[in-house]
Amino acid sequence: MHSIKHITSLQNPLIKRVLLLKEKSRERKKTGLFVLEGLRELQIANRTKYKIETIFFCADILNDHQNDSFLESFSPEKLISVSNDVYKKLAYRDTTEGVLAIVKSKDHLLSSLTFDNDSPLILIAEAPEKPGNIGALLRTADAANLDAVLIANPKTDLYNPNIIRSSVGCVFSRNVKVGNTTEIISYLKQEGFQIYCAALSASKEYTSVDFKGPTAIVVGTENSGLSDEWLNSSNQNIIIPMEGEIDSMNVSVSAAILIFEAKRQRKLNV
Amino acid sequence: MHSIKHITSLQNPLIKRVLLLKEKSRERKKTGLFVLEGLRELQIANRTKYKIETIFFCADILNDHQNDSFLESFSPEKLISVSNDVYKKLAYRDTTEGVLAIVKSKDHLLSSLTFDNDSPLILIAEAPEKPGNIGALLRTADAANLDAVLIANPKTDLYNPNIIRSSVGCVFSRNVKVGNTTEIISYLKQEGFQIYCAALSASKEYTSVDFKGPTAIVVGTENSGLSDEWLNSSNQNIIIPMEGEIDSMNVSVSAAILIFEAKRQRKLNV
Repeated sequence: MHSIKHITSLQNPLIKRVLLLKEKSRERKKTGLFVLEGLRELQIANRTKYKIETIFFCADILNDHQNDSFLESFSPEKLISVSNDVYKKLAYRDTTEGVLAIVKSKDHLLSSLTFDNDSPLILIAEAPEKPGNIGALLRTADAANLDAVLIANPKTDLYNPNIIRSSVGCVFSRNVKVGNTTEIISYLKQEGFQIYCAALSASKEYTSVDFKGPTAIVVGTENSGLSDEWLNSSNQNIIIPMEGEIDSMNVSVSAAILIFEAKRQRKLNV
Repeated sequence: MHSIKHITSLQNPLIKRVLLLKEKSRERKKTGLFVLEGLRELQIANRTKYKIETIFFCADILNDHQNDSFLESFSPEKLISVSNDVYKKLAYRDTTEGVLAIVKSKDHLLSSLTFDNDSPLILIAEAPEKPGNIGALLRTADAANLDAVLIANPKTDLYNPNIIRSSVGCVFSRNVKVGNTTEIISYLKQEGFQIYCAALSASKEYTSVDFKGPTAIVVGTENSGLSDEWLNSSNQNIIIPMEGEIDSMNVSVSAAILIFEAKRQRKLNV
């Protein structure tokens, strides 16, 4: 790997750019770029046709993991070697593998949503706030092989470093779209989805509804639940009966329970 | 509330003691005391017969919440007023209600475990590391009204501030016991429990086992799973089929899926 640029200064404009992209959602929106961290994440993004602009690697850390060969598949002018100190300043995680990259965002427009099967099972999260929750939802979506995840009225951009990290890269590989509640509801009605909204009142137990047709499971935030717009558009509001002291579960836990009940029902059909 | 002591100095020995109890597991073990934060947590601990030693409150913050009356149910010598600055130094949370307390620990010995029904459903977590995960498990246990939660080979003490916080006080109200794996397995066998271990291989799908009898669902850590001791003592190893990119879910998510499938089966019986 000769002819590869090596950066040792935190004052280098490229390094400053990485930090800005990591920290500022506005900067990510303006440039259409974001930063990812970790070899697995880079591999997933690469395989799912994200455009990799620049890869920063720290040779000391990388050698331990013997992953040079993957990097060699990229053209040398995309690769930049950084010193240990610079890498530590850029890296978000402790157990990171010595690789970071600047990557081009995708659009995630609702209009580009397509499905591979006639009876899709999708998850919709309205206005989720915590990046860690969004990551956990995407991880569950991956495990269940959901046909899509829609974020309605997003409060954070999808390329927030915490979402990438907590989704373990699933934000790249899953079919994720973003839109406002009104347009998503209109889309679902038009496409013949049954809309099941998770709600705390006026609801049917989740185990007694039929998730076998085209199904959209909709969850709100832990604090305020779903908006009236969703609840009024629902085919059926559903509830996970809670029998304890407190009246809520983490949104990613609730969503997983609902999704895997749908999966269970669908398997009975095969 | 006259005759109540007021502390404004961070150098006050009582304040230093609170900080020590919050930060040091060893100090909690040595003294048999711990610190909780929040009105709801204090109410749950009080109702579940924890011995409250000292309550620290910040009048400025408390008044906003109009919760004086609950505090007045305690004898004045247990109450200590603190300044805003002192409170901020002691408090862990941003959105806290102006109340902290030093409370006496309970033992959580396996030998004290009793059940209210003939067919208990319990969760066992082996060597869980992250306090946030333990809290989330306890929250799910609360929602499902599990008969007990057992922590096998604990890596952290139950009164870690992060566990109290993330369990939303359920660590006080649930039937939580702690022991080593060997004694817990021996107890379960003796009491006629079916042991179902969550495992990634050589397992049956979780939806095809019968959770209706006395049932122990056992989960390990995300990184290393369950020990051989558990897997070899299992009546059946069970798996949540995963169809995606990554091969694991968060332990609290997996546990919730298993527990609520057991709940679903048990309802069919009623």
